[in-house]
Amino acid sequence: MNTKIILRNRPNQTVTQDNFECIDADIEPLKYGQVLVLNQWLSLDPYVRGRMSERKSYAPSMELGDVVMGEGIGTVINSQSDQFKAGDKVIGMLGWQTHAVMNAAAIKLIPEAPFSDTWLLGAAGMPGITAWIGMMEICKPQAGETLLITSAAGSVGSIAGQLAKVQGANVVGVAGSEEKCAYVQDVLNFDHCLSYKHSSWPSNLNKHAPNGIDGLFENVGGALFDSLIPQMNPFSRIAICGLIAEGIEEHFHSINLRTLLANRMLIQGFIVSDHVSRWREIQKQLIGLLVEQKIRVHEKITEGIQNAPQTFIDLLEGKCLGKQIIKLS
Amino acid sequence: MNTKIILRNRPNQTVTQDNFECIDADIEPLKYGQVLVLNQWLSLDPYVRGRMSERKSYAPSMELGDVVMGEGIGTVINSQSDQFKAGDKVIGMLGWQTHAVMNAAAIKLIPEAPFSDTWLLGAAGMPGITAWIGMMEICKPQAGETLLITSAAGSVGSIAGQLAKVQGANVVGVAGSEEKCAYVQDVLNFDHCLSYKHSSWPSNLNKHAPNGIDGLFENVGGALFDSLIPQMNPFSRIAICGLIAEGIEEHFHSINLRTLLANRMLIQGFIVSDHVSRWREIQKQLIGLLVEQKIRVHEKITEGIQNAPQTFIDLLEGKCLGKQIIKLS
Repeated sequence: MNTKIILRNRPNQTVTQDNFECIDADIEPLKYGQVLVLNQWLSLDPYVRGRMSERKSYAPSMELGDVVMGEGIGTVINSQSDQFKAGDKVIGMLGWQTHAVMNAAAIKLIPEAPFSDTWLLGAAGMPGITAWIGMMEICKPQAGETLLITSAAGSVGSIAGQLAKVQGANVVGVAGSEEKCAYVQDVLNFDHCLSYKHSSWPSNLNKHAPNGIDGLFENVGGALFDSLIPQMNPFSRIAICGLIAEGIEEHFHSINLRTLLANRMLIQGFIVSDHVSRWREIQKQLIGLLVEQKIRVHEKITEGIQNAPQTFIDLLEGKCLGKQIIKLS
Repeated sequence: MNTKIILRNRPNQTVTQDNFECIDADIEPLKYGQVLVLNQWLSLDPYVRGRMSERKSYAPSMELGDVVMGEGIGTVINSQSDQFKAGDKVIGMLGWQTHAVMNAAAIKLIPEAPFSDTWLLGAAGMPGITAWIGMMEICKPQAGETLLITSAAGSVGSIAGQLAKVQGANVVGVAGSEEKCAYVQDVLNFDHCLSYKHSSWPSNLNKHAPNGIDGLFENVGGALFDSLIPQMNPFSRIAICGLIAEGIEEHFHSINLRTLLANRMLIQGFIVSDHVSRWREIQKQLIGLLVEQKIRVHEKITEGIQNAPQTFIDLLEGKCLGKQIIKLS
């Protein structure tokens, strides 16, 4: 039997347990070219929120009744494909479920490696590569510049800030609690991390970024974004990676183009899936930095597929710290 | 005697004749290292509007009583510099005046060349290089893409659109009158040019850019900019070059960052003076295109320094077509 979480209905504003349903189902027989995977690790990521809505976006929505999408790692336990055999460890969009019937073309073999497989779901996987593209190729930090990262304790922000630190930048994180800020500052070695919920925000920003902001890695949007714009320096770069604060309603920002022109600012939206051709090259560099401990990771592992919805809701509500992973077997 | 136009007072909203004063003054004796230039050609450019205001910008304002700034070409008639001799033809910020006392370091010799010197004030000078930076390095047109240029009949827009045409793009201009549009379409060979004052604007845009806009070279701002944003395609680029419609008041645009993110859009402000190190290289390419007649120029030459203020006012009010030059001697 396969235990799976399906999309029962679409969220209005906030995601609730009611949007999900946990059901048991028979596993369908394999067709030629398919494999059965016993799922071991499931990655929870904010982009899934977008797929729960019907709104037109850069990727299709999930349909009601679909297994909720998510990347995972598991072991092949039955194969009707020439490409995989029982015992192979694989990665792919296995979904929020204990077992996945997958076409061989939709999964990749994970070679033996001297590091935790779960890195491939986080710091050396989609979130890490997202951080790389936004930080290294849009924000382009230079030694001595000030880089600011919102949602700094998250799976993407935590890597983005550490990449800027490797380049010699002054790195300031913004997060939603004192606990997260302590983690970002003490464990991830950002120069500073400020809570936007603290009474001294945003005046404390001027203290810790006294020379303004040269690069902004934006994961949040909303009013937080608006409060940062006046701090942007001439020749500054803003990478728009995520807008977790904006929910599904239309949200407009009031932007003065003359300021943007006079400061020669660059604002660019990006999506990691546009860069699949560069995945391996960037992954290799991230693994190198991880092995050398120039980048640190924090993975929060929760057991059991039935806990995926609540952990995901906590993630969207800013209650989580680090990379959220569900252990399935 | 030197006849010069000085900044008498700063404009409130629109520039008027009253902001300028035409006066005659003695020419001061040359110091060592200086030359006296008899000015021949004066370039009128919209950026001078910004320097007339006190508002903080990327370059310092003019002071009241200063000769109005402007690039010009002239002939050395007296030299106290080892670098120049009487008869040398030079280019520099000679100002709105008939004679200029210049430090040798502030002017450049113009070598003999088989084309009109005035090109160096327009298509092969600052406006042309501005067009190059914004079009070739920010908009980056690809064959088959649709590029849109606002203020298409102006000295910068006219070159920007022709550069996109050389790349094989579908080039749509936007201008403020039917007369300008006819010129842009018939003489400059843009695929289309639309008047934003026409009753069918912006519905006629959908007709002439049915596949949306891949690159926008923005010279205007204001409501015109807002009407174009919904037409921008995935992976589109916007170069903010000028905002002539926005005057000096603070003007805010309502921008949906999720649209920007979902479309992976890039918005970048730029200023040509940041790229002085590349001036010669770009100028050489522009001259090549001009000589081969792949880029056409239209220069409107008005005689007499006393006509500079009204021609400049007409330029700001969108009454001019092509590159505006004042003939001084």
